[in-house]
Amino acid sequence: MSTLRVNLAERSYDIAIGSGIAESIADYLQQWSPTSHVVLVTDETVDELHGDRLASHLTEAGLEVDVFAVPVGETSKSADLLIELWESLLDQGTDRGSVVVAVGGGVIGDLAGFVAATFTRGLRFIQVPTTLLAQVDSSVGGKVGINLTEAKNMVGAFWQPNGVLIDVDLLATLPPREFAAGMAEVIKYGVIMDAEFFEWIENNQSAIRDHDAEALAHIVEQSCRLKAQVVEADERETSGHRAILNFGHTFGHALEAATEYKSLLHGEAVAIGMVCAARLAFTLGRVDEGFCQRLEKLLAAFDLPTKIPLDIDRDAVLKLMWHDKKVADNRLVFVLPTQLGHVELVSNVDDNAVDDKAIVASLG
Amino acid sequence: MSTLRVNLAERSYDIAIGSGIAESIADYLQQWSPTSHVVLVTDETVDELHGDRLASHLTEAGLEVDVFAVPVGETSKSADLLIELWESLLDQGTDRGSVVVAVGGGVIGDLAGFVAATFTRGLRFIQVPTTLLAQVDSSVGGKVGINLTEAKNMVGAFWQPNGVLIDVDLLATLPPREFAAGMAEVIKYGVIMDAEFFEWIENNQSAIRDHDAEALAHIVEQSCRLKAQVVEADERETSGHRAILNFGHTFGHALEAATEYKSLLHGEAVAIGMVCAARLAFTLGRVDEGFCQRLEKLLAAFDLPTKIPLDIDRDAVLKLMWHDKKVADNRLVFVLPTQLGHVELVSNVDDNAVDDKAIVASLG
Repeated sequence: MSTLRVNLAERSYDIAIGSGIAESIADYLQQWSPTSHVVLVTDETVDELHGDRLASHLTEAGLEVDVFAVPVGETSKSADLLIELWESLLDQGTDRGSVVVAVGGGVIGDLAGFVAATFTRGLRFIQVPTTLLAQVDSSVGGKVGINLTEAKNMVGAFWQPNGVLIDVDLLATLPPREFAAGMAEVIKYGVIMDAEFFEWIENNQSAIRDHDAEALAHIVEQSCRLKAQVVEADERETSGHRAILNFGHTFGHALEAATEYKSLLHGEAVAIGMVCAARLAFTLGRVDEGFCQRLEKLLAAFDLPTKIPLDIDRDAVLKLMWHDKKVADNRLVFVLPTQLGHVELVSNVDDNAVDDKAIVASLG
Repeated sequence: MSTLRVNLAERSYDIAIGSGIAESIADYLQQWSPTSHVVLVTDETVDELHGDRLASHLTEAGLEVDVFAVPVGETSKSADLLIELWESLLDQGTDRGSVVVAVGGGVIGDLAGFVAATFTRGLRFIQVPTTLLAQVDSSVGGKVGINLTEAKNMVGAFWQPNGVLIDVDLLATLPPREFAAGMAEVIKYGVIMDAEFFEWIENNQSAIRDHDAEALAHIVEQSCRLKAQVVEADERETSGHRAILNFGHTFGHALEAATEYKSLLHGEAVAIGMVCAARLAFTLGRVDEGFCQRLEKLLAAFDLPTKIPLDIDRDAVLKLMWHDKKVADNRLVFVLPTQLGHVELVSNVDDNAVDDKAIVASLG
């Protein structure tokens, strides 16, 4: 078991990473956020797999536990469900001494975190991420929120957890496609910040694929450590530095939108998006062909897509990219690699370079 | 014109207080929060009186202005209206560069502030309070939020404004009863923190009642200064110190609830609540009879009620007090004076003292 500290002044907190440690949830809770009342938010699938068991551990430790299991999927990040949760918390006598515990993937962390950020102007909040994506991405950063009808993550807050409990054993129940999607973000950290880590993943592919607990704990810890470095330097996304985490996301978001968030998982879209960004960087003479191939090879090794599916309209993707909320002064800001382990924000990219070369090169 | 600084680390901001200064709103905005897009939130009555004029000033200064005028009254602090505003802001192309300007009383400041705190995880926010209560209370503290069906202010955030523009001329259009309700909070600051200020109000009653601009600017500035001292010491209500601002509010909230928030304005309930608290302090031997009479006299001089109306059921008030969210460990925490200009938090009050003596003494 290892502990990683995220340093954010009075909002600092620990991430505990290990195998089987979720069974000790009551101890972690009392260490991080002593309370007598827990609001456990999960989804219906995770509730059956893990939520119910974790709630029992808390109840056995003498805590009062109210469980809210919401429907599975992105549609639960809605304003209507948010209001329903607010009203339910009130009915259950939730007060400032209560602690919200999120058990689930990114949707649950975002929704439960926003409830925590707003109920009585702020409740303490513990995350128990159950997907690889949530373990390496949502655990660090404090971004919580919901979707509006026409725009994802449009409403929310920065609300840091009081602790994050990452048990890699929980990944055993994760569908393989979801595990792969999480690997896209893991690989991303290597590309943008840490060439050695990228190489470690290359050299330990089979251990990761076999869910070796030590290998999983290593990639999760390293990913959280790298993301924490970025978040510590730019907690509220004000300096611009945090934007490097969006590597692959400008193309990725457009791909998700073009497929109406149905056919591609977020991590899959990011995998393709990273290839597009790498190809664009190659077009601009920033990286060589070898860089692109090495990235594509590692993504493919985890069964991630590396080409834009043939049925996606190239013009639609480009049009959607220009609607991405990260458009600054009507110029798209791209996060582009210069070498393995380093990216830069580039805003003066010629439209034609984006259009004709990078996208074409990535077409399936 | 005077400027008061509220010191909250990187969340520090200025309050400009003066007569006629709202006409310069565009200059203040560009000084505090340079932008090209303003979301102006107001209510239908204030929109006619001031909102429309202020929006014109901003438009003339070259800004794009979207005005959202919500229905008058507390019912606008609802989750439904919040969602409507979120969706409207999205439709109008609001982004992180936009600034929310609240023009109105406490309801508008709370609602617009919560929209600002949450849309795209946080927009800059300027307050232009148009009631005396909002000028002396909501301008400082950063508490924003909405009501749930069964509980006031149950959902919200701490979100500091980037500047507050207080034009005492705007009070000319305020109904006299609302002005008096604001005076209850002004007098409260004297009682809890500053005997000299209390005396100044006693000596300048007619200037205040006549809306003399200098007298109004003085009471607003002094009130904001005193509240800022408290908020600076306990921004997020964690140390307990901020609770002194609740003097008169434990009884006051119960009175408001007992009358279903219909017959008493908040300030009127606080006026009666302060008398109840003073009488309780007298019962406990903490202050003398002269203290109580002096407080009652000053409240009455501004046409504020000082007795619990005869038609309010005493038992209902007591029962409601025990449901107040400030109940800690099932004991009511009272804010009680020891002398003019000083209060203490008292949690070990004998129930009978509250019930039999303090309430009876305050009955009309």
